[in-house]
Amino acid sequence: TAPYSLLILPGDGIGPEVMAEVTKVIDWFQTNRGMSFTVSHDDVGGAAYDRYGKPLADETMAKAQQVDAVLLGAVGGPKYDDLDFSLKPERGLLRLRKEMDLFANLRPAQCFDALADFSSLKRDVVAGLDILIVRELTSGVYFGEPRGIHADDNNPDNEGGRVGINTQRYTSGEIRRVARSAFELAKRRGNKVCSMEKANVMESGILWREEVQWVHDNEYPEVELSHMYADNGAMQLVRNPRQFDVIVTDNLFGDVLSDAAAMLTGSLGMLPSASLGAPMANGRPKALYEPVHGSAPDIAGQGKANPIACILSFAMALRYSFDQGDAAAELERAVEQVLADGVRTADLMGPEGGTPVSTSDMGDRIIAAL
Amino acid sequence: TAPYSLLILPGDGIGPEVMAEVTKVIDWFQTNRGMSFTVSHDDVGGAAYDRYGKPLADETMAKAQQVDAVLLGAVGGPKYDDLDFSLKPERGLLRLRKEMDLFANLRPAQCFDALADFSSLKRDVVAGLDILIVRELTSGVYFGEPRGIHADDNNPDNEGGRVGINTQRYTSGEIRRVARSAFELAKRRGNKVCSMEKANVMESGILWREEVQWVHDNEYPEVELSHMYADNGAMQLVRNPRQFDVIVTDNLFGDVLSDAAAMLTGSLGMLPSASLGAPMANGRPKALYEPVHGSAPDIAGQGKANPIACILSFAMALRYSFDQGDAAAELERAVEQVLADGVRTADLMGPEGGTPVSTSDMGDRIIAAL
Ligand SMILES: CC(C)[C@H](C(=O)O)[C@@H](O)C(=O)O
Ligand SMILES: CC(C)[C@H](C(=O)O)[C@@H](O)C(=O)O
Repeated sequence: TAPYSLLILPGDGIGPEVMAEVTKVIDWFQTNRGMSFTVSHDDVGGAAYDRYGKPLADETMAKAQQVDAVLLGAVGGPKYDDLDFSLKPERGLLRLRKEMDLFANLRPAQCFDALADFSSLKRDVVAGLDILIVRELTSGVYFGEPRGIHADDNNPDNEGGRVGINTQRYTSGEIRRVARSAFELAKRRGNKVCSMEKANVMESGILWREEVQWVHDNEYPEVELSHMYADNGAMQLVRNPRQFDVIVTDNLFGDVLSDAAAMLTGSLGMLPSASLGAPMANGRPKALYEPVHGSAPDIAGQGKANPIACILSFAMALRYSFDQGDAAAELERAVEQVLADGVRTADLMGPEGGTPVSTSDMGDRIIAAL
Repeated sequence: TAPYSLLILPGDGIGPEVMAEVTKVIDWFQTNRGMSFTVSHDDVGGAAYDRYGKPLADETMAKAQQVDAVLLGAVGGPKYDDLDFSLKPERGLLRLRKEMDLFANLRPAQCFDALADFSSLKRDVVAGLDILIVRELTSGVYFGEPRGIHADDNNPDNEGGRVGINTQRYTSGEIRRVARSAFELAKRRGNKVCSMEKANVMESGILWREEVQWVHDNEYPEVELSHMYADNGAMQLVRNPRQFDVIVTDNLFGDVLSDAAAMLTGSLGMLPSASLGAPMANGRPKALYEPVHGSAPDIAGQGKANPIACILSFAMALRYSFDQGDAAAELERAVEQVLADGVRTADLMGPEGGTPVSTSDMGDRIIAAL
């Protein structure tokens, strides 16, 4: 088969160090599993600002459009806090999502047996947890117009004299396509989708609910569908997260709820994500893979970071971009093996102890387990 | 002193039964603490729809504007699911909030010692939890214009042909006044405020952050202020909720985050709320008090509901509307006493057992403890 093309954007903070471990894994699959990757590198976020004067250069954007999959580390850091809104590291990431039209953001929240005690939740509430949040990623209040901060001088009631505006806007088509992703994924898992919005207070939530129901009734009647208000969803995630299989929700609710779900597992350093768009000419979807954790500037460059989330993001790439489900499972098993052996980066070191390792040791252990 | 005027709106589902217990408490304070209340009753939500054809009659609205405090039970139920958006039970509640201009919604999340094991979180994470979420309640995406669902026929990319729109809109003045409420409350508690928004993706979030900071720097420099992105806020609430004292956030984030925070305590049937506006001519703020839980139609009319959240909402009325902090504390102590004695409605009945009681028994026990 033709080589798989990758663009690696390590980004800021711990991004480069965790990505270095992914590179080892890529090499292993090339050497041992007959895969062939062509890999290019570039910058995003603060690193891109430092080099190009903006958080994503047009050349980088063009490259991202051409590869099979983008692997991203993390963006952001205190150094860039005072930059103008349009130059902030996050804008680079948001531009990639929008221009690649990566509408389906897959965020698994999985509790690893060896790490269940890390959760702030009781073991019996989270053990075996395996839910998948499908978050709409290219629309909603993140991108809606009009937006901005304006003077509101003629309003005598407005002490301070400004007004801040964002627009939540969804089309039927935008809702339907992400709903289809959720139903497709559910079919390969527990066959259950729960859709979350605030249809009791927002018209865009009513449209969301109706369109998800439409896709269900017309295309996936065999999948079990329920609807839940997003505030109740937040409650239920805390109360009994295992009631869920696939959750589908909009960009903003997805941002908040997927982070709550991620924290249920107690080990943020373990969680990958995939952002998928429409199929390209070669049949592969536009795709970007990134760990859920941030750039963690406080520990950057010290070899303390946990590379597993980034490595598992690459496993998602194997599965969703290259249809290499077996290879993905192999990599996931290697990670579980290493954890079961008690190998621990600093963030995973609990009272029960374990073998403390650095970022790069962890990568080596995973390679060894493969 | 002049009598305190109350408007009681029991609403739907378990609303009437829990409110009946509050009435006992009101009577007790009249008889034993020399307070005098004038109480009127009316309908809201589905009950109002059944009686008046809309979820809040204009006469009821007018009454609510004139009393010192509105006590509300709960609204909603499956019977009303198919009503038009503008007739749904929730619209009654939202109209009260908006027309009374109740901009500061106080949602304490407190973990009662006797109930700490009810939480899905580990005891050592939630024991002693006492945080207060101050949610902006009269603006943001709940009320912003334009809003609605429209045809989008000229858009060939929009399969389905509709678009749903809501507007997130905040003025500086709206942000400053709720920030002041949060700082004032913090001064009487742990002296710490954490403000949450998504200033990294929303301009309205930038304005939010700047105005909260402005109020801090100019009026409350002695209170400790921090800012956090709302997604991280959801994580931190799950990871280590006791890091917070007062949280101030907008209407929509407040809806989701306060429900997550409520569920941390594990006993939703315990949590009250207050919604406060500007001072009236008599110096008392416009005010509405309601339990955080919903109308629970599945158990309505069976004597199973826990009246404590509604009773503690009345305690908040004593404190915030009538400046009767001692009486409020007396009532709160009576509730704690009854819990410590092992008296339990069905929702509070855990493995360690206790004395099972009905809704009205629980009310009687609290009266006895007073
Ligand atoms: C970095 C930020 C712009 C981003 C978001 O809000 O989407 C992040 O929180 C995420 O969830 O990927
Ligand atoms: C009933 C509903 C309209 C309401 C809201 O969304 O504000 C409720 O969830 C709440 O938090 O009080």
